[in-house]
Amino acid sequence: MNPNLERLQPYPFEKLRALMSGVTPPAGLDHIPLSIGEPRHPTPAFVTEAVLAHLHGLSSYPLTRGSATLRQAIAGWLERRFGLGEGALDPERQVLPVNGTREALFAFAQAVVDAGRPGAAVLMPNPFYQIYEGAALLAGAEPVYLNCGDDGLPDFDAVPAETWARCQLLYLCSPHNPTGAVVPEATLRKLMALADEHDFIIAADECYSEIYFDEDRPPVGLLEAAARAGRSDFRRCVVFHSLSKRSNAPGLRSGFVAGDAEVLQAFFAYRTYHGCAMPEHHQAASRLAWGDEDHVRQNRAEYRAKFDAVLEILGDVLEVQRPEAGFYLWPRTPGDDAKFARELYRQQNVTVLPGSFLSRTVNGENPGAGRVRMALVAPLDECVDAARRIRSFLEHK
Amino acid sequence: MNPNLERLQPYPFEKLRALMSGVTPPAGLDHIPLSIGEPRHPTPAFVTEAVLAHLHGLSSYPLTRGSATLRQAIAGWLERRFGLGEGALDPERQVLPVNGTREALFAFAQAVVDAGRPGAAVLMPNPFYQIYEGAALLAGAEPVYLNCGDDGLPDFDAVPAETWARCQLLYLCSPHNPTGAVVPEATLRKLMALADEHDFIIAADECYSEIYFDEDRPPVGLLEAAARAGRSDFRRCVVFHSLSKRSNAPGLRSGFVAGDAEVLQAFFAYRTYHGCAMPEHHQAASRLAWGDEDHVRQNRAEYRAKFDAVLEILGDVLEVQRPEAGFYLWPRTPGDDAKFARELYRQQNVTVLPGSFLSRTVNGENPGAGRVRMALVAPLDECVDAARRIRSFLEHK
Repeated sequence: MNPNLERLQPYPFEKLRALMSGVTPPAGLDHIPLSIGEPRHPTPAFVTEAVLAHLHGLSSYPLTRGSATLRQAIAGWLERRFGLGEGALDPERQVLPVNGTREALFAFAQAVVDAGRPGAAVLMPNPFYQIYEGAALLAGAEPVYLNCGDDGLPDFDAVPAETWARCQLLYLCSPHNPTGAVVPEATLRKLMALADEHDFIIAADECYSEIYFDEDRPPVGLLEAAARAGRSDFRRCVVFHSLSKRSNAPGLRSGFVAGDAEVLQAFFAYRTYHGCAMPEHHQAASRLAWGDEDHVRQNRAEYRAKFDAVLEILGDVLEVQRPEAGFYLWPRTPGDDAKFARELYRQQNVTVLPGSFLSRTVNGENPGAGRVRMALVAPLDECVDAARRIRSFLEHK
Repeated sequence: MNPNLERLQPYPFEKLRALMSGVTPPAGLDHIPLSIGEPRHPTPAFVTEAVLAHLHGLSSYPLTRGSATLRQAIAGWLERRFGLGEGALDPERQVLPVNGTREALFAFAQAVVDAGRPGAAVLMPNPFYQIYEGAALLAGAEPVYLNCGDDGLPDFDAVPAETWARCQLLYLCSPHNPTGAVVPEATLRKLMALADEHDFIIAADECYSEIYFDEDRPPVGLLEAAARAGRSDFRRCVVFHSLSKRSNAPGLRSGFVAGDAEVLQAFFAYRTYHGCAMPEHHQAASRLAWGDEDHVRQNRAEYRAKFDAVLEILGDVLEVQRPEAGFYLWPRTPGDDAKFARELYRQQNVTVLPGSFLSRTVNGENPGAGRVRMALVAPLDECVDAARRIRSFLEHK
């Protein structure tokens, strides 16, 4: 067996199950899970209809590279969304469809990390989406956790040169899960300079980029920052996007990677063996989804309403703020986060995810401790109900 | 970059493109590709309808483990098909759905190979499905090619003990692509004993197992041989099956792995990071497909008719025989296989795959050389047309 399997950590939800084991919530209250980051708004009808209209795709092996029309639709979306200008991306060489960002983020590390180089390191924010850590471990590298501060982001200036020197891959998550912070353009520029200096790749997980609150101020993306820094070849930069959150289609398993053509060529070679090609009927629906923004604006409006309502209820009883983007709240808890989560479940049948389950202790500090993650994915009334119960829980503690 | 990417070989179809480059076939003849092993019979309507009826699955993240009902359907199929007896397989621990056998065969090596063990080797037949080799290389192991003889199978008795001692994983392909040979039960027993002795895993790619010619004599499977050898725990045995060929649904990306619970537990841990979960609408259709044999019998009847017709045309001009199973012919060529393929294309606009493109030269011998692979996947009339053209080509050489 691959001995790196032994190095994998339990998932946050395994820890949550263990934490809640033996706890009996009140029978009279429905369970509201704010712990799970699964989009629950309906999939747009035109996406479902496009899948339906292309079910003849069941009879063909899909191509790893995807159809040219899908790649063109993706390149066009990136160009419009991030102000890259028409033709800034070559759909042949700088775009690859993937079966969701999870598989792509994982496979990417397997393809790019050279575990034979001494001190091989993969850097990631802390707290983090656990796939980054597993990807690093299974690629045979050391995961290096960069603690997020109060601004919800790692202090990249504090990373020692020795660590950058060993870095082969830096995972960014922007907007960040769970803190909701967006890595600013100036920081992205600094990171690109560091990537050049120390020869590493930046893998920016931007799967939450379309869930934001001010229609006039969408979060900046890595390719956008690269283009504005004059890196029109997106050297050492790769972004990961998904339709799961943007278009409420997690079951479509559809996303893409885009950026550095040379890196993508190697990743493509890996993927032809990896064997995750997107079925043609899912490609057809994805093409249409990337071409439409109305449903994405509508989606944002629904999240905005939920954040407004929930923050109105919780704003004065919990240390919590509206995130820059994403669909999570990341409040501080009065006292221990795991205890908070367990007691909230016991008294109110609401589950939230302890922040310490999403992070590792580095130098004696666990940056997720003392916070919980709440996903506002349920319908508005359910989110409001949950918020009222949390308020009641806090007031009667 | 992962330096193992450099060790990957060009795909057979890249070599074929290079071989045919600059060759102009006769304008008056339609192109018939016998080179591609993609099923072309129609996907059964009930499979398409099941996908359609479950498109609400687009709104949910699927589980890596798949639904209990899908795993039960798979276990039931294995029990019926391979005479294991009801309840012989535990659907919770001994079955995992996968997104087709390609991704599973590849990921499996990444999960089970310990590249740190000296001489780490993955054994495979030669010629072979190229994913086995890429999986071995990217897992950091040495691919060891076992030349197939005239019977279309490796001579396992000829493998030195020193090689078995280094073996961590043995890929079997039975029925074999391209030779069509089925590994006999006695050989499977010997291999299981060797697996015990040398502590390796047998990964049997059985994706062609349902394409056979005598309804009363289906090919034996590894789990069947294991059960009859008293290995009710299927220790060190894992099989890979797919709906692509059995049910003409390559775009469903649906298959499964089954066998040793301990091995599957480790593979499951890998797969939670690997991130290839089957969409729920594909799971629902797969469940029904594994539960129906009528369409599979019909599928076999169509292949049988094509083999009958083509062998009638070619049997006396080419050294060719009906395979035990699968949808390939694997005739000897008069002279060099690549030259045969190129000239056939030039004169008749029919493409076949040179056998030497599917194999490696070991000890000065290339077991695919002097043969070509012809996939009888096209409709009957097209296969007959191709066979007549090949006959004409051979008669006018």
